[in-house]
Amino acid sequence: MKLDNRGLLIVISGPSGVGKGTVRKALFERKGHDLVYSVSMTTRQPRAGEVEGKDYYFVSKEEFEERIKEGKFLEYTKFVGNYYGTPLDRVEEQLDLGKEVVLEIEVEGAKQVRKKMKDAIFIFIAPPTMADLKARLTSRGTESEEIIKERYQKACREIGLAYLYNYIVVNDTVENAADKIIAIIRSEHARTIRSISGYKKLLEEANNEHD
Amino acid sequence: MKLDNRGLLIVISGPSGVGKGTVRKALFERKGHDLVYSVSMTTRQPRAGEVEGKDYYFVSKEEFEERIKEGKFLEYTKFVGNYYGTPLDRVEEQLDLGKEVVLEIEVEGAKQVRKKMKDAIFIFIAPPTMADLKARLTSRGTESEEIIKERYQKACREIGLAYLYNYIVVNDTVENAADKIIAIIRSEHARTIRSISGYKKLLEEANNEHD
Repeated sequence: MKLDNRGLLIVISGPSGVGKGTVRKALFERKGHDLVYSVSMTTRQPRAGEVEGKDYYFVSKEEFEERIKEGKFLEYTKFVGNYYGTPLDRVEEQLDLGKEVVLEIEVEGAKQVRKKMKDAIFIFIAPPTMADLKARLTSRGTESEEIIKERYQKACREIGLAYLYNYIVVNDTVENAADKIIAIIRSEHARTIRSISGYKKLLEEANNEHD
Repeated sequence: MKLDNRGLLIVISGPSGVGKGTVRKALFERKGHDLVYSVSMTTRQPRAGEVEGKDYYFVSKEEFEERIKEGKFLEYTKFVGNYYGTPLDRVEEQLDLGKEVVLEIEVEGAKQVRKKMKDAIFIFIAPPTMADLKARLTSRGTESEEIIKERYQKACREIGLAYLYNYIVVNDTVENAADKIIAIIRSEHARTIRSISGYKKLLEEANNEHD
């Protein structure tokens, strides 16, 4: 029995290469939770097989920039000439429906969300060791040594920003990390600050009794 | 992987008759958690079969009162002429060993603990409805109508104190309530405020890298 009906905005972030995406996927395989993944909006062209509203909302550059001006993004970024962003209205809609909205974003994006949504839950995914992170970045095998080095240095800087998050979850195994995030979601719903409004009915009944 | 090595002090409280003891027992049946139950100290005589250090620490009235003066109780109360209290030193020892120390105490006792242990996790067990609480109090069948009425009125007053707790857990089913408490324990260990010290090693490694 949950005392609050609104969903939580769960921001999963962490350094480059820590395995945020894998953890998020494992999370969505857990049963019995009303998780939804926030679909991003982008100005880049759809790739073969990508579905509007499922993979991305595809919009023109003009529309995207108009939305930026109107403050309609929870966070956005420009990458290789294209915009990518999280539409605020879609997130609010889902939260009101009681869904837990999961954002898996870069550390920079999380910073923007922190300014707009004080009530969101910020989870920093940390590697068990830096050696482990380096190994992960290297093992992809698709990037040059130079790019790996750059990404590792970026990750080292990002590691220092964990203190800004509500929780630090170590990605020692993907299953452990996903389990912990589920525990965080359950636990956050039980926090008095969230559940006290649902608790009012009980309070009123109790007050009528001892008046 | 946990980033903090110290255990948590978990205070389970709630109105008279809500089923705190049953929830606590269900909690201790969960595997894979290092829970210990805090053994109380009392001045009452041991009953047949009660074991010193397991059921209670049995001490004289003089010793108990000396300990009160020395501030050696996390909380204590006097009931039908005998003292009952939670020895602070035992709790600290267990927390240092990394055990999660569970206290199942009355609302009044929780108030005392709040003053001494800012870092404890306070969980208020709430009934699904007041009618449900009334039914529970009545169904024991061992007490007079007058006593049931008194306990119910006390419970109604206690319901109003939930806002002082970190979490409100509805005892709709004992298993649900125990599950939620386990989630709260896991989640609290991942809170940045607790895990940041264990995270320092990683921070240092990362700092050495980008200096």
